[in-house]
Amino acid sequence: MQRVSKLFQPALIIPKNATIKSQDITSKSQRLMLEQGLIRQAGNGTFYLLPLLQRSLQKAVDLIDRHMEAVGAQKMVLPLLTSAELWKKSGRLGATEAGTPTELLQTTDRHGKVQILGPTHEESITSLLAAIAPVTYRQFPLRLYQISTKFRDEMKPRFGLMRAKEFLMKDLYTFDVDQARCRETYDSVNEAYGRLFREIGVPFVKVAGDCGTMGGSLSHEYHFPSEVGEDVLIRCTRCGMHTNAELFPALSERCKSCETGSDTFERQAGIEVAHAFILEDRYTKALGATCLAANGKPVPLQMGCYGIGVTRLLAASIEVLSSEKEIRWPVALAPYRVCIITPKAGSKEEAQATPWVGKLHDDLQSLANCAGDVIVDDRTQLTIGKRLLDARKMGYPVVVVVGAKAANEEKLELHDVAAGTEVSLPYSDTLSAVAEILTAAKRSEHPAAMQNDRNKVAQKL
Amino acid sequence: MQRVSKLFQPALIIPKNATIKSQDITSKSQRLMLEQGLIRQAGNGTFYLLPLLQRSLQKAVDLIDRHMEAVGAQKMVLPLLTSAELWKKSGRLGATEAGTPTELLQTTDRHGKVQILGPTHEESITSLLAAIAPVTYRQFPLRLYQISTKFRDEMKPRFGLMRAKEFLMKDLYTFDVDQARCRETYDSVNEAYGRLFREIGVPFVKVAGDCGTMGGSLSHEYHFPSEVGEDVLIRCTRCGMHTNAELFPALSERCKSCETGSDTFERQAGIEVAHAFILEDRYTKALGATCLAANGKPVPLQMGCYGIGVTRLLAASIEVLSSEKEIRWPVALAPYRVCIITPKAGSKEEAQATPWVGKLHDDLQSLANCAGDVIVDDRTQLTIGKRLLDARKMGYPVVVVVGAKAANEEKLELHDVAAGTEVSLPYSDTLSAVAEILTAAKRSEHPAAMQNDRNKVAQKL
Repeated sequence: MQRVSKLFQPALIIPKNATIKSQDITSKSQRLMLEQGLIRQAGNGTFYLLPLLQRSLQKAVDLIDRHMEAVGAQKMVLPLLTSAELWKKSGRLGATEAGTPTELLQTTDRHGKVQILGPTHEESITSLLAAIAPVTYRQFPLRLYQISTKFRDEMKPRFGLMRAKEFLMKDLYTFDVDQARCRETYDSVNEAYGRLFREIGVPFVKVAGDCGTMGGSLSHEYHFPSEVGEDVLIRCTRCGMHTNAELFPALSERCKSCETGSDTFERQAGIEVAHAFILEDRYTKALGATCLAANGKPVPLQMGCYGIGVTRLLAASIEVLSSEKEIRWPVALAPYRVCIITPKAGSKEEAQATPWVGKLHDDLQSLANCAGDVIVDDRTQLTIGKRLLDARKMGYPVVVVVGAKAANEEKLELHDVAAGTEVSLPYSDTLSAVAEILTAAKRSEHPAAMQNDRNKVAQKL
Repeated sequence: MQRVSKLFQPALIIPKNATIKSQDITSKSQRLMLEQGLIRQAGNGTFYLLPLLQRSLQKAVDLIDRHMEAVGAQKMVLPLLTSAELWKKSGRLGATEAGTPTELLQTTDRHGKVQILGPTHEESITSLLAAIAPVTYRQFPLRLYQISTKFRDEMKPRFGLMRAKEFLMKDLYTFDVDQARCRETYDSVNEAYGRLFREIGVPFVKVAGDCGTMGGSLSHEYHFPSEVGEDVLIRCTRCGMHTNAELFPALSERCKSCETGSDTFERQAGIEVAHAFILEDRYTKALGATCLAANGKPVPLQMGCYGIGVTRLLAASIEVLSSEKEIRWPVALAPYRVCIITPKAGSKEEAQATPWVGKLHDDLQSLANCAGDVIVDDRTQLTIGKRLLDARKMGYPVVVVVGAKAANEEKLELHDVAAGTEVSLPYSDTLSAVAEILTAAKRSEHPAAMQNDRNKVAQKL
């Protein structure tokens, strides 16, 4: 493709009718990402993220950065290695071998110090706050986040990037002077999550979640509904109350949110892509992270933590939107938004049609919603038809074919991949048509009204 | 400062006349970065990178991305964990305990598999190429890079970010079909490094380097000359030949690059910020990464690797440019380019001068070289003088004080921090003056002519 070096996109070719080892490929998104050269397996639960996926990843990171900045969150870097001593202080690491969570990867340095390859960094960030404590109440709210590699020693890594040993996570930690302000922060970050997921455009639900091993008092999860999801979500059909089944062990129960105590529920599976927790002083008290209140007395900070599984988000988007054979991306995360397919080398239209390619590429780049997002598939040894199939499999939202009609009638073939439609347009109409498809695709991805209603109800919990 | 939440910049206050533990703070850059709230120590050799440094880091990453893209390098992500088996295959990990390099951090998963926390990823990337081998020669050159956390179990971490256990590194791996093309890639990447370091603007030298534990046949290093540097660089005063002293054990020797065999040399210490290696087939042969040559036969790929220490680059820039008391940044890496200081709360100029602040901020943001790079120090409980001292310590290239003169004469006080000069200007002249200072600062940072001459000579090696 149009680059100094060739695009590195080593596809995993699975022969037709091959029996694929089910233990290796356990989800549709994993198979499609392998087949399209987006990922390669490195080890059990570790993956190479190849250049096209890196582009989607960068888009996810940029989106998250923007929504975090909007709530005053400041980006920083915490070390990946956290002293095991800190985990002992917080009580999450048993004093004995037997008490150590089995999902924690550890490493011992040459001086015999044990370090944890963090799955999450409550201890680390709280220790930083403790080191400068007590900080005046005027310095709060404080919202600090990072986007970095996390580790989990999964017994059975599966579903590709959705349950890996090494994954990219955004983790935000918030600190407030009292519970009321901590709750304000909680609402503010949850609203930011809502805006973020609506902008991404994959249908999602927000449900009441389990505080689990994190401690704390309130928690919500964000799920992409999908049959591959490992969580079961329960929704009261009367009041819309939405909760993780973990919180709702007996289905014979009546809904506590309904005035009438409804007993009809819907179940659906979901892939958890984000999680919000109010942790209160669970960590700050143990580690001594205090603030100087207005009355001059030190009090433990009220803490929240807010994760987004960034690599999981990419895989989950593909899982939810794609067919068995073709990837579909939310426009916001597609590696490129437009793919231009050039005439085949040696074809009779090559000479006349090729000059259109450069002009089209440059003109598209000048559109606000395509800048930097146009790829030219110039593998001219392949037929247009073969490359069109490839582009549809990759799920570029728009494909423009510069073929025979470009030479004869000055017309380009425009494919709206999500809608599955195709039109021939004169060059002069192509640009506005591309812009229109991208805008419409973004709009239609997400049944916004329904989702918003559901979320409003869920937020009442 | 002007944000939804307060800027998180916990400075390490060292009392006057305090005896600082020399084992903890071992370089000027480390001390200045601690004092200015850019970093905090987490453990022995691990650091928190705080929000202001994160901004500089992002600028370094963006610059590197741009120069890598210009040579057709494609960004991707390699897993941080590499199977120890791969390191055994390449011969870098002894079969016995005794043969294991002591600087490697390792972790063992619940299935007993040993993984290496990579200091570098030759084995990992070569294994990826091997998995898809043999690839047709038409697919090359292939240039793949990542910017990610690397680990080294240092016996004595020191100099803050310059020799840490955990650091951010850009590592590019290149693959070519034969030695001649590998050498073309080598020259091309080295030229990109030259352009990158000239754009950063810190004086640098390129010297012939040792191939060390990497294997391979040709190597160059990029150093920032500094007395803190752990490498000794030797330069022939006659022909300019520049080399790491490791390659030049006996100073009684005569220069091999001179026709006359000169025996007068200059020595200088340097901080290594980048390294380039031709690795030939050192890794590709061991791991089976081949390409299908034009004659249809598989041959081992010719490999190169090219590192840049990204966190080290930030610390080294500060080390080289700063005084003992005040940080100086290259303009390209300063956390913000312009700092606006507002009137003190309760001062008599407050009411009249404050309205200028918002307008100045917005107007400066509209300048091409300040967009997103203006910070307002609105800690109005502090005097202007105290905040000006702080801004100079942080080394923001330009400081604009909106003080008494803004109220009385509609004049702003403009500080060119690097030059140490100050002028009062009417509002209408301020914007162009800021733009001029930033442009001039970039130009003067680097004695380009001298450096370029030295580099040209060094490249002849």
